[in-house]
Amino acid sequence: MKYSVIIGQSGGPTSVINASLLGIIEAACNSPMVENIYGALNGIEGILNYQIIDLRKEDKETLQLLKTTPSSILGSVRYKLNNYQSDETIYLKLINIFTKLNIKAFFYIGGNDSMDTCHKLSEYFKDCHFDCKVIGVPKTIDNDLVGIDHTPGYGSAIKYIATTIAEIYQDISCYIKGKVTIVEIMGRDAGWLTAGSKLASLSNNGPDLIYLPEIPFDLSHFLIKIKEIYQQKGHVLVALSEGIKDHTGKYILNYRSFNSEDDFGHLQLGGVGELLAELVNRKLHLPIRSIELNIPQRCSSHLASLTDIEEAYMCGKKAFAYASDGNTGKMVTIKRLSNNPYQVSYELIDLAQVANFVRTVPLSYISEDGCDITNEFIEYALPLIQNEPLIPYNNGMPKFAHLKKVLIKDR
Amino acid sequence: MKYSVIIGQSGGPTSVINASLLGIIEAACNSPMVENIYGALNGIEGILNYQIIDLRKEDKETLQLLKTTPSSILGSVRYKLNNYQSDETIYLKLINIFTKLNIKAFFYIGGNDSMDTCHKLSEYFKDCHFDCKVIGVPKTIDNDLVGIDHTPGYGSAIKYIATTIAEIYQDISCYIKGKVTIVEIMGRDAGWLTAGSKLASLSNNGPDLIYLPEIPFDLSHFLIKIKEIYQQKGHVLVALSEGIKDHTGKYILNYRSFNSEDDFGHLQLGGVGELLAELVNRKLHLPIRSIELNIPQRCSSHLASLTDIEEAYMCGKKAFAYASDGNTGKMVTIKRLSNNPYQVSYELIDLAQVANFVRTVPLSYISEDGCDITNEFIEYALPLIQNEPLIPYNNGMPKFAHLKKVLIKDR
Repeated sequence: MKYSVIIGQSGGPTSVINASLLGIIEAACNSPMVENIYGALNGIEGILNYQIIDLRKEDKETLQLLKTTPSSILGSVRYKLNNYQSDETIYLKLINIFTKLNIKAFFYIGGNDSMDTCHKLSEYFKDCHFDCKVIGVPKTIDNDLVGIDHTPGYGSAIKYIATTIAEIYQDISCYIKGKVTIVEIMGRDAGWLTAGSKLASLSNNGPDLIYLPEIPFDLSHFLIKIKEIYQQKGHVLVALSEGIKDHTGKYILNYRSFNSEDDFGHLQLGGVGELLAELVNRKLHLPIRSIELNIPQRCSSHLASLTDIEEAYMCGKKAFAYASDGNTGKMVTIKRLSNNPYQVSYELIDLAQVANFVRTVPLSYISEDGCDITNEFIEYALPLIQNEPLIPYNNGMPKFAHLKKVLIKDR
Repeated sequence: MKYSVIIGQSGGPTSVINASLLGIIEAACNSPMVENIYGALNGIEGILNYQIIDLRKEDKETLQLLKTTPSSILGSVRYKLNNYQSDETIYLKLINIFTKLNIKAFFYIGGNDSMDTCHKLSEYFKDCHFDCKVIGVPKTIDNDLVGIDHTPGYGSAIKYIATTIAEIYQDISCYIKGKVTIVEIMGRDAGWLTAGSKLASLSNNGPDLIYLPEIPFDLSHFLIKIKEIYQQKGHVLVALSEGIKDHTGKYILNYRSFNSEDDFGHLQLGGVGELLAELVNRKLHLPIRSIELNIPQRCSSHLASLTDIEEAYMCGKKAFAYASDGNTGKMVTIKRLSNNPYQVSYELIDLAQVANFVRTVPLSYISEDGCDITNEFIEYALPLIQNEPLIPYNNGMPKFAHLKKVLIKDR
């Protein structure tokens, strides 16, 4: 008997989250068992509000553009599902809609929180013997999911970071007496993205100092290093994580004191890079610049890694195949089989083992003095940024997919 | 009789300044009259300190990479030449070195200040009947030189800006209730770069509001607009120039009050975008994000415009040809012959007409309400971002030229 499937996207977008969507759509299209392929606008919230589109209405040419279109094309959401033990309302509503639409497979492309949603949903479905497979498809630029070699989205993010760092290094080193340039990189409490800046060293344009949240940040050691390198080279490039903390666990960003006396004094926005640059200027009287890479880290699809795009796409394809085979309550995971040649396989992991855990950078990837990255990390990360997609251009700019998004009627 | 030439780079780098260098080198290589091709490290300062390299020692393959290598490969400098009427010391030193090295042509790739240097030098050489041609080669991402249709470097900068704005728009519009995102763009007192953000509208991903320094910035009108658009769309994307001013001519950035009571309170770094984002949060209680595009605007050569690269290269080639023909005291300029098909010619302009002038955005490029850009600008700017170079990649990252930089001996 034929059945329908629904796909949602959730959490912070990446450059390749739509490649996973395409993988699921294509696999579903190729299955004679699948009737309708639904897309949930803005994740779970879209299902609950019947903001559901018919993905079969999209033309193939547009869908192909998904591989190089950044951001969550179905819209995203940050929605924390409550425990069904305390309140079943939402769950009953979902079952009601899934039943009406004959949905027997739910795919959710997301990070940590989204896997928690998948986990709760699959547990509930099992508990009440509701036949709908739930498969999580991983994505996050932060690379902080457990049980996976690396997350789709990470490779493209560090390809962007390493390239941008190399270009910045090239730029700032053209003066005899340059500046201390501090580049702030995303990643919350994990240093994966910042570690990626090290790849720029392969073109001799790497940062002079790299600070991750995994190692307590020592302000005086930092200042000594800056002074030393500046005296020697006439410029310093620092890459650091937004989430660096001191030895007490306090975020360095929180060292900032606030002045809320007037409309313009109370600055919440400047990050830790700005804060430390200002300090370097005050303490060492050196010229400074602070750069926050910001959201281009997760949406610069023009610089995506082809390896990453293909893996994200395969995660989507495999998610459908695994659901068809009767699996549920699992996340598709990437296992590295070998590094040379680089080979991976796509397997399954229990959602319970993934949801709400965070994986940080292993200490073996960080140098002993705490301000550099080891070759072991380079070996791990380098395959992930290999090869470039053919970006379709229009009017001199990358061409993005614009879906029709035909809403289905509330029957 | 054979002669030698020398080339320098000066001022802020661009993505394509090295393409102009390559143009001069290749033209000089093709001339049977040219003996040595010298490169001045860090501009005028390099000549004075005998930091002069032999560019014939560089291999051809490396030189080809100059077309896609960002930053000033010879090193840059910010050096203001004094008037020779007040003190001839520096000028005499230069003549001494040029005579020793048989240098009969000096090429300087730079912006406003560099053209001032060229102008003074060529005037002095004329005055004392010293036979050395001086030709300026234009570059600046700011596009604020007079007497030229557009400056090499500008096209690549706005290709980067428009692409990044389109990607950011794509990213921030994926939530139902998103943020007010303010993107701060370079350009000093001219709004050329910020205007370039409008090109993203061709892919329906343009900013909702665009503010240039050419129009006085009205804070209350700004807040009204933000509120209106947020209510309608659930997110707002603003592109604004670092140099926006109020109706009295005061920089909006200077509205910030300082708190210098402790080590961390005194923030000089955050730009006007951050300041206004904070204000939106306070006054309208809307979620905000501030993004400063920063120096990737001038060094993201992976996203350079091929049109820009070719024009920068041609400016270099023509500079040599014009000097060979006996011209001096001139800058190579680009004249637009037609827009459809897009065609330009390379002509000469007196340095006196260029040095120390600034060209701002004409008011016809700005909408009547002062917060948008007209189609007239799009017609002007669109040809400048067309076509993409083939970027050579190595290890998953763009490959840059690394010159040998063989110093000549002080004879």
